[in-house]
Amino acid sequence: MTATDTDTFEESLNISPGKLAHDLESLPPTERADLWRGLSAEERSAAMPFLHDEIKEGLIETASVAELQNMTENMAASDVAHVIETVTEDVAQDIVDNLSDEAREYVQESLSFDEDQIGRWLRHDDLRFLDTGSVAKVMRRLKVRGLSKYTDKIFLVSRDASYQGAISLSSILEADETRLLVDLPKIENDCTFDPETKISEMATEFRKNHFISAAVVSGDGFLLGRITAEDAVTTLQDEADHQLMSMAGLDEEDDLFAPIGVSAKRRALWLGINLLTAFLASYVIGIFEATVQQLVALAVLMPIVASMGGIAGSQTLTIVIRGLALDKLNESNTRTLLVKELGVGVLNGILWATVVGLVAYAWFGNQALGIIIAAAILVNLIAAAFAGMLIPLALDRLNLDPALSGSVVLTTVTDIIGFMSFLGLATLFLV
Amino acid sequence: MTATDTDTFEESLNISPGKLAHDLESLPPTERADLWRGLSAEERSAAMPFLHDEIKEGLIETASVAELQNMTENMAASDVAHVIETVTEDVAQDIVDNLSDEAREYVQESLSFDEDQIGRWLRHDDLRFLDTGSVAKVMRRLKVRGLSKYTDKIFLVSRDASYQGAISLSSILEADETRLLVDLPKIENDCTFDPETKISEMATEFRKNHFISAAVVSGDGFLLGRITAEDAVTTLQDEADHQLMSMAGLDEEDDLFAPIGVSAKRRALWLGINLLTAFLASYVIGIFEATVQQLVALAVLMPIVASMGGIAGSQTLTIVIRGLALDKLNESNTRTLLVKELGVGVLNGILWATVVGLVAYAWFGNQALGIIIAAAILVNLIAAAFAGMLIPLALDRLNLDPALSGSVVLTTVTDIIGFMSFLGLATLFLV
Repeated sequence: MTATDTDTFEESLNISPGKLAHDLESLPPTERADLWRGLSAEERSAAMPFLHDEIKEGLIETASVAELQNMTENMAASDVAHVIETVTEDVAQDIVDNLSDEAREYVQESLSFDEDQIGRWLRHDDLRFLDTGSVAKVMRRLKVRGLSKYTDKIFLVSRDASYQGAISLSSILEADETRLLVDLPKIENDCTFDPETKISEMATEFRKNHFISAAVVSGDGFLLGRITAEDAVTTLQDEADHQLMSMAGLDEEDDLFAPIGVSAKRRALWLGINLLTAFLASYVIGIFEATVQQLVALAVLMPIVASMGGIAGSQTLTIVIRGLALDKLNESNTRTLLVKELGVGVLNGILWATVVGLVAYAWFGNQALGIIIAAAILVNLIAAAFAGMLIPLALDRLNLDPALSGSVVLTTVTDIIGFMSFLGLATLFLV
Repeated sequence: MTATDTDTFEESLNISPGKLAHDLESLPPTERADLWRGLSAEERSAAMPFLHDEIKEGLIETASVAELQNMTENMAASDVAHVIETVTEDVAQDIVDNLSDEAREYVQESLSFDEDQIGRWLRHDDLRFLDTGSVAKVMRRLKVRGLSKYTDKIFLVSRDASYQGAISLSSILEADETRLLVDLPKIENDCTFDPETKISEMATEFRKNHFISAAVVSGDGFLLGRITAEDAVTTLQDEADHQLMSMAGLDEEDDLFAPIGVSAKRRALWLGINLLTAFLASYVIGIFEATVQQLVALAVLMPIVASMGGIAGSQTLTIVIRGLALDKLNESNTRTLLVKELGVGVLNGILWATVVGLVAYAWFGNQALGIIIAAAILVNLIAAAFAGMLIPLALDRLNLDPALSGSVVLTTVTDIIGFMSFLGLATLFLV
């Protein structure tokens, strides 16, 4: 099944597959099942690739073997691979047996790569021609098969399928039909990808360079297929989604309308982790129980110190997480950014330390209390800038996701330093 | 200046404009100025559209009139419009005077729309043909001008430039050259946009339907130009960036390496707003000063109640903000989601209330204290689910940005309800 066929097939549907997937995901489970039952096999297989994992897997699990066979006949290799990984081994065999020889080969190739590698996702709808061919040959092929989406170039191969370079579709259209492909100018600095490249790296290259499509070439020089701007955009959107969701300990692939028990269980973990950090903060306060007992104003004011540190730190943290995601932070500019963030911390520390100090003094009529809370806020805002920089950088270096655990670690640091400095200074100088 | 020219021009650069913009943004100010000075006028005008606002405006402000004139000669109308809005009126006039008649007309048209409307951003590189023309005519034009990026269809117009529909490029390539365009099948359910459409609406439609390009047609039926997947993707990435950054009170258009004073001033506002909410929480604690004085364990434990509510609430909040951004929430499913979130709140409330209650009892050997903190956590987690749902929905209905102010309002609610329920119950039953 080539993508040209898929395109024609998509055009025959009354609703776009992306829109259909969107509608399915926006429905609560019972209505979703109703809509799904009403769809044709064609519509189901078209919508499937656009669904998020949990919903997709839910629908795969409820389908019969015959339905799965019908669906996978029309699917790209990467999507069939996902179906196969979801079902039991027996069902997987039934699905594979039903595929054409070519499709089966593509699916096996796809399954030989990890889910985060390009090889898993590459498409076989490239326009490839022997470099001995002519422009007329390309034009004839276009006349018969039309043009699949995101095609801005054709690929040249030698007789043994080894990759020889790319020619822009514009050059083809502009050239005389009698000319040989080998004589046309190839695209300079043509970018190709190894199938083992991480999809996030590929997406970053596409974003920076505004590529439309690129060849995927194996280590020994064979043209395997292509990857397009559509794949890059999907990856970038998933990453942006992931960043937003994981900062709250959520997974972007989860069903919005998952059963209450399932959702509660998932979120319980995040609450539990945060509870541990909250207990740590309580433990710190507990150390100074006697001090708080003597001056209860400390209990009234202490959340302010922790909260200001948390807010300031999360600003630095967000900037660093975004800088890492957009590949904008490197060895040479990290130091500059750290100095800047510390500077911002000091300036805002002085400003808000003064404000809070004066308010505390006015509220409780205690000058020393005002000075101490001011000092604690200054300390915590500087610590927050340090923590907001170093925590995500360290997590990133450890190959941990800074967006997922960054905020928990940061809050732990700013809570502890906030309570410790405020109550510690009070113990030393106030009571 | 047509986009075909721009494409050829981009190809003549040694580095892609997007990559150049990325490198400029990743450099601290002095190195950035050095790199900028070394660029040719062509490179500068190519990179400019890809820069974030603050950096772009900084570079525009330091450029001479002659440099600006050189740069804007090669720019799309929307980019010239941005330059014109940044400089003084005199300089703007010098720039406009230097443009070709056609370019000047496009810039004026662009400036007649708001920055968030399609009219501001539309491109004039569409392939348009009289519906009386033949396929041969299209092929001749392609031969002379090549194909600009993201061209998947041609547009048909009548003699008075009124829009008559679109034909896919595939259909053109597949058709016999002698056929008339009017006889070829038009794209069914062809989607066109009014120039006053909000770009975010356009981007959502492109995302759902996987459009490559679409015609922009005025209210009285004239074809004004086109909008492409590239514009949609840029908008979607800006929106995702905006969501992440604004949840920490930051602006995605800001320079990563802005001067310390400028950054400190920007972030001060966010810290100030959060300080107000922290003082509100302190005020609530202050009401119960006498109670805390009598039982200092309350001071030790109270941050746990507030923190658990904040974390649970921010999970619901994030889900709703993302649902709104992806256009997945509507009248009919909001109620279902609210019921679900409340259910999750109750289940996790019971679980963590029990855990915290037992720990508090074990820690302080006070059974009533354990029961009271458990009750307070249950109350706060249910309140958090309500607040996490209703705050972003209300802000969205008021046309306020839920991502920007949602978390501040939420934390205020969960802090106040947390402290109020814990210390209130303690005052009633414990001391």
